[in-house]
Parts: sequence; structure tokens; C-alpha cells
Amino acid sequence: MEKFELHILGCGSALPTTRHFPTSQVLNVRDKLFMIDCGEGAQLQFRKSRLKFSRLNHIFISHLHGDHCFGLPGLISTLNLLGRTADLHIYSPEGLEALMRPVLDFFNRQMTYRVFFHEFSVQAPCLIFEDRSMEVMTLPLQHRMPCCGFLFAEKPSPNHLLREWVDFYGVPVSEFNRIKNGADYVTPEGETIPNSRLTSPADPPRKYAYCSDTVYKPTLAPLIRGANLLFHEATFANADKARASETFHTTAGQAALFAQTANVKKLVIGHFSARYEDEQALLNEALAVFPHTILARENLCLPID
Amino acid sequence: MEKFELHILGCGSALPTTRHFPTSQVLNVRDKLFMIDCGEGAQLQFRKSRLKFSRLNHIFISHLHGDHCFGLPGLISTLNLLGRTADLHIYSPEGLEALMRPVLDFFNRQMTYRVFFHEFSVQAPCLIFEDRSMEVMTLPLQHRMPCCGFLFAEKPSPNHLLREWVDFYGVPVSEFNRIKNGADYVTPEGETIPNSRLTSPADPPRKYAYCSDTVYKPTLAPLIRGANLLFHEATFANADKARASETFHTTAGQAALFAQTANVKKLVIGHFSARYEDEQALLNEALAVFPHTILARENLCLPID
Repeated sequence: MEKFELHILGCGSALPTTRHFPTSQVLNVRDKLFMIDCGEGAQLQFRKSRLKFSRLNHIFISHLHGDHCFGLPGLISTLNLLGRTADLHIYSPEGLEALMRPVLDFFNRQMTYRVFFHEFSVQAPCLIFEDRSMEVMTLPLQHRMPCCGFLFAEKPSPNHLLREWVDFYGVPVSEFNRIKNGADYVTPEGETIPNSRLTSPADPPRKYAYCSDTVYKPTLAPLIRGANLLFHEATFANADKARASETFHTTAGQAALFAQTANVKKLVIGHFSARYEDEQALLNEALAVFPHTILARENLCLPID
Repeated sequence: MEKFELHILGCGSALPTTRHFPTSQVLNVRDKLFMIDCGEGAQLQFRKSRLKFSRLNHIFISHLHGDHCFGLPGLISTLNLLGRTADLHIYSPEGLEALMRPVLDFFNRQMTYRVFFHEFSVQAPCLIFEDRSMEVMTLPLQHRMPCCGFLFAEKPSPNHLLREWVDFYGVPVSEFNRIKNGADYVTPEGETIPNSRLTSPADPPRKYAYCSDTVYKPTLAPLIRGANLLFHEATFANADKARASETFHTTAGQAALFAQTANVKKLVIGHFSARYEDEQALLNEALAVFPHTILARENLCLPID
């Protein structure tokens, strides 16, 4: 199966602790890297994860709180020092470019590559990126400021040709694409060979949903139904539910309930408040509701399947 | 002796490695903390060093390269989240406030404390800070942009009263300050008690000199002569001297030569280029010239005496 895996670079929240970096993740889709949020230290963690800067062309920022984007100036400057030439694309709610441009212009007198900011409104879900194999939709979240999650969805792949049967029936190369996309084959003698004999089904498209930071928002569940993996913030424990509401965050129990409602295959929780010495209590709380839950941790690599 | 110690938070240079954070240090002077440069991740390393944010009131920035100041927005935001009320003072070459204010204003809608920027010219040494026990002078360096080092010098302390002799001669409290500052005591009977019988000498004032980033600049040596500790950048090895010149940096051998010329007591080298897998070769090169050299490393705490 093609590579589709998530690297956690940081899973703390705004206050620094000795255990966590602020939020940043990298999604590896067939060796193309997509960064999701870029908290302070993201470039250091990126390096530590042995990922390749040259594979990174797209960065998605969920909202303009410092713990989700203060790593950008350092990362962009480093790519410049490395002599990068490929364009870099940054997707975010409105306002990021106005803040970042003066900083980037000052600290990088001579840029070896171009940075493009793509800003969008977070009011409704919208398609903000697509390439041959994947598309990225925004997920409107509810936080103290405009904020969205992201749904990374593989596009359906064509079926696989079964080489031995293709050869057996002498199917010409010119027919391959049609057959991969589901057509039957009619031999020169007029015999119809059903598609099911000539192909095996493609791997089903996979989906990764990223939700941070937000109040518990079950109305969002239909948008991510059946995702292979859901990251959901779980800043607080249920015992601190009042604090979670006040700050527009989610508890671990609520994150699990959301995963259950959306019927995802697996849940990873993160964005932990600095107040918890260890997150086992958050995990237990989530497991009681949704058994396929794990804790995020720095430098964790999760295959998505 | 009063506390005077250096914490290394980061000693790498601009390109991130798996081993180093970019430049930041904290000088602890009698439990008042002075931060020197603030590269990305400084607040994380600060926390890891178990230092107290509430003790930090002054930050000194040597120059406006990202690896020396990209940690400021995160640190300042964190202090705000913690509800700090005390003023924070940032000292830097010209230009920092214009870059930082818009970022700070956006990311900290409601500040619980005030940040004051104090900008100075780096052309000539100047006194930029003093309090009861210490003063800070700039050291003009030569880099690709305006850049300075800092000399942290304790002020001379008054002598210590020898309690048993003060009591023996019945010296009144009103005389204590004069005697601490060197005066003899004349008894009501007219007998002169020499100061040396009533006091023991104060500890000699200590000095810490910080030099980063710069070309080898021996003309600076008289300004830091006899310092108890010198931090000097040693970005490159002598073998890469051409690269050092090109980028306005120093080699480990040159840093040691500078320490020798300035007759400091101890040298710590840092700001290591990412090209060196380990810095033992840099250390060996420096030790051959100046035996009292050590390598900086993250979370190292060095008493200065």
C-alpha cells in the first residue's frame, strides 16, 4: 500500500512543559510531506524525525494562535539557508501573510525560493488543496478565533491490472487505462471479458482528519465519517470541563465521544494542557468511550490504514 | 559567594540539528535571571532548566538574525498566559521593536504586562543596563549585520564586617556602612581601629563576557581582560577558516587565541555549525591554544568564579 502516515512533531498546548513541544504534525503521503500547524520548534522536531525538508511543499495552519504558527519564521529561514528553490505554499485563515511577510522579508534578505500564502475563510468547509492523489478540505471548528481542522482524503485509485490475465487474453496496452477504470474487455473475437477477471480492486482511499483547537462540536461528525484516523485535541480532562468550555477546548471524554459519533477507525488525542503531569488519565477517560484511542507523543509515527 | 552562573539553553547555529537548539543563555546573578539571545525554543529549554519565569526581567539580543531572536514571540506570549505583571525589558540593536510589535500585538490581544524595547547603536561600547549589583556593557562585534556582545560585570561589593570584632569594640550600627566601605573606626576614647581588623575583603567582582557572532577580533580583548568566563562563538574548525571569514564567523582555534589574548580565566565555546557531527575536534583545537576551554552543551550550568 502507498505510504500514508502521520508524524507527531509536537502535541502540547500553549504553555511549554519539559515533555511537549507545541502543535505540529507532518502527514507523509507517498513521500510528499504536508505539515499541519507549525508551533515553535517544529523545524527542530522535523529534523529529529529524520524527515526530508526537500519533500515539504505545503503547510496547513489551523488558526493564528502562537502555539500553532510561531515555528514558521525559523522553518522558512532554514529552508532558505539550505538553498531551496521549490515554491512553498502556506494555507491558513486570513491574516497570516500580513503578519509574516515583514518578518520574512527582514530576516531573509535574499530568498532562494518563493513563499505563497493561501488564505481562506473558515465559515464553511472548502477544498483548499488537491493534487493527483489527494485533496484537503477545511473543517470549520469553533474556537476563540477563526479556526479550522483539515480533512486529508486520498482520491480513489484505479483498479490494479492482473498481469497474468491481461497477458492471457492478449489485451493491448491501449486498453489498460479503460480497464483500470472499470471497463470490461471485448476480444477481437467478440468475447466479453468481465472487468473483475482482469483487475483486483484498488486499495480503498484513506482519510485523515485533524481537529484542533475547538469546543466539542458533534455537528462536524458527518464530514469525517469513517476516517481511518482522527486527531482530536483533548486539552483537558472531563473533571476540568468548565475550564474547557471557557477556553473553547475539548475534554478527552468529549474527543472520544466525537470519534464514536463520527465512526472513525482510530483516534489519537493531543494538545495536552500543561497542567497534567502525565496524560494516562486523559487516555483512560477516552478509552472508556472509544476503545481505539491512543495518546499522541513527540516523534510518534502512525501508519494510517 | 553570591550566585553568578550561566545556563546554556542552546548552542547551535542557524541550521537545526538533532543535537542543538539555536542560541540562548541565561545568566543567573543572585537569582535575578538575564537572558542572552533568544533563539527558537528558548522558552522550552528555559523550562527544562527548571528556571523560574518570574525571575526573568531582562533580555539581551546580540543581533537580528533569526537564530538569535525567533524565540521571543513564544516566550513573551507564554509570560502573558502566565499572567505576568512585571515589566519586561528587551535590549537589542536597532530594528527589533518595529518587527516584534505587530506580532506581539496580534498574538496577545490583552497583555497582562508591558514590554519595553531598548535599542542601541553597536558602534562603540556602551553601558546599557545597571542595577545595584551589576552592569552590562556592549562589546562591538563584526558580523554580517550590526551585532554586539555583552560584558556582565558585578559591581565591587563592600567589605564584610567581622561581627566578633565589631562587637568587641562596640561599634555603633550607624558606623557600619562607612566601615564596610573602607573607613577605620575611632572609639569614643580616641583609639583608631584599622579597617583591616574590622572587616574581611569582599569577594572580587566577577565578569562574564559573551561574544557571538563575529569574526576573530583581537582588538576587543582589552575590554574583557581578566573576565572569569568568556563565551565565544566557534562556529567552524580551523580547517574551515575560509568559510568562517566568508560568513563573518570565528574558528575554535581563533576563539582560543582570543581567550588567551584577553587573559580570561575560562572559555566556553559554542554556536557550532551543523556540519560537525560532534564537536570534540573543535574542543581539541581550542585546548591546544587555551587549556581552560570547555564545550557548551544544552542545559549545561556553569558557576562563574
